[in-house]
Amino acid sequence: MRKSEFEIKNKEIIEEILNSSEYATLALAYDNKPYSVPVNFVHDGNVVYFHGAKKGKKKEFIVSNSYAAFSIALPYSLIQSYFSSNDEMACPATQFFRSVCASGQIFIVEDYDEKVRALSLLMKKLQPEGKYKPLNQEVYTKMINATEVFRFDIENITGKLKVGQNLSQDRYEMVLDYLEKRAYNIDKETILSMKENR
Amino acid sequence: MRKSEFEIKNKEIIEEILNSSEYATLALAYDNKPYSVPVNFVHDGNVVYFHGAKKGKKKEFIVSNSYAAFSIALPYSLIQSYFSSNDEMACPATQFFRSVCASGQIFIVEDYDEKVRALSLLMKKLQPEGKYKPLNQEVYTKMINATEVFRFDIENITGKLKVGQNLSQDRYEMVLDYLEKRAYNIDKETILSMKENR
Repeated sequence: MRKSEFEIKNKEIIEEILNSSEYATLALAYDNKPYSVPVNFVHDGNVVYFHGAKKGKKKEFIVSNSYAAFSIALPYSLIQSYFSSNDEMACPATQFFRSVCASGQIFIVEDYDEKVRALSLLMKKLQPEGKYKPLNQEVYTKMINATEVFRFDIENITGKLKVGQNLSQDRYEMVLDYLEKRAYNIDKETILSMKENR
Repeated sequence: MRKSEFEIKNKEIIEEILNSSEYATLALAYDNKPYSVPVNFVHDGNVVYFHGAKKGKKKEFIVSNSYAAFSIALPYSLIQSYFSSNDEMACPATQFFRSVCASGQIFIVEDYDEKVRALSLLMKKLQPEGKYKPLNQEVYTKMINATEVFRFDIENITGKLKVGQNLSQDRYEMVLDYLEKRAYNIDKETILSMKENR
């Protein structure tokens, strides 16, 4: 990251972004040609699990090259240029956001018990209310054997938060004023994060 | 795309997703190691423009390898397993969504007038209300020279829409019922899309 004032240094915040995001974008590459695809995922310690079909582009890329990147971008407000400047310059226009980017390698999970565990974690995350038979029951064997489960081993992970930490006090207060007036739902979330991170 | 029933064949819908999305995820690769990063962008015919710093990871990757992918994922509702099944199997749990994936090559825009045009399009998209001096004014020269503008030339673009098109009538109606009861904002959008695409 070029500007270190935007780096998220608190690992708990990265963890929270991973746990609260239902999907992420996976970047793969074969023969130096990238391919990106959104996936539902679950994060567990130093790995991320996701699943997919036994055939298809995603699996072909992963089999040919295990290196991958993984990113989540959660937008905060778009900051219009006049929110932080009185001189009618376009330059201050920006997007506030938080993001997580990870790099690592992806492996196909062959062990049946690890597949069950991964799919159970994914269900627990996305359907916390339960209402389904546990995945270790025999009734699932055929389906689980027909599903590919992938494990992304995280080698490096960084988080970035941009909510005006670099603004002078004058400009910071101008932005707050405009967001309070506009008052979209996302503006309310942005204001909270701006205040938490000032 | 493996399941053609989910492919968006209407180019206007792909166009609409590109025009209504403020950011996309860019996938780059160097030495077969992928890197993904969110960018604000504007789409113009067969190209996508975005901007960035003259130094940094994004530029280094692009300079070393122009091939790139570009994706936007817009979630619809998470569909819990019991929304479309009475047998307590976890398998029907899924995510409804629409997405666009493009592949192509990225070039650094060197021509000053093309940079002005690209940045003007980006401002027009993200700040349609105006309230800034036009970017062809001399007051911007120094800033524009210090900004890198990138052009993504689209070679291939596909769209995917998954809103239960593959469900039997019984299951489709069950999902509709559950979404109408849950009635999150995203569920209302999902119901509209399900009905439009049935």
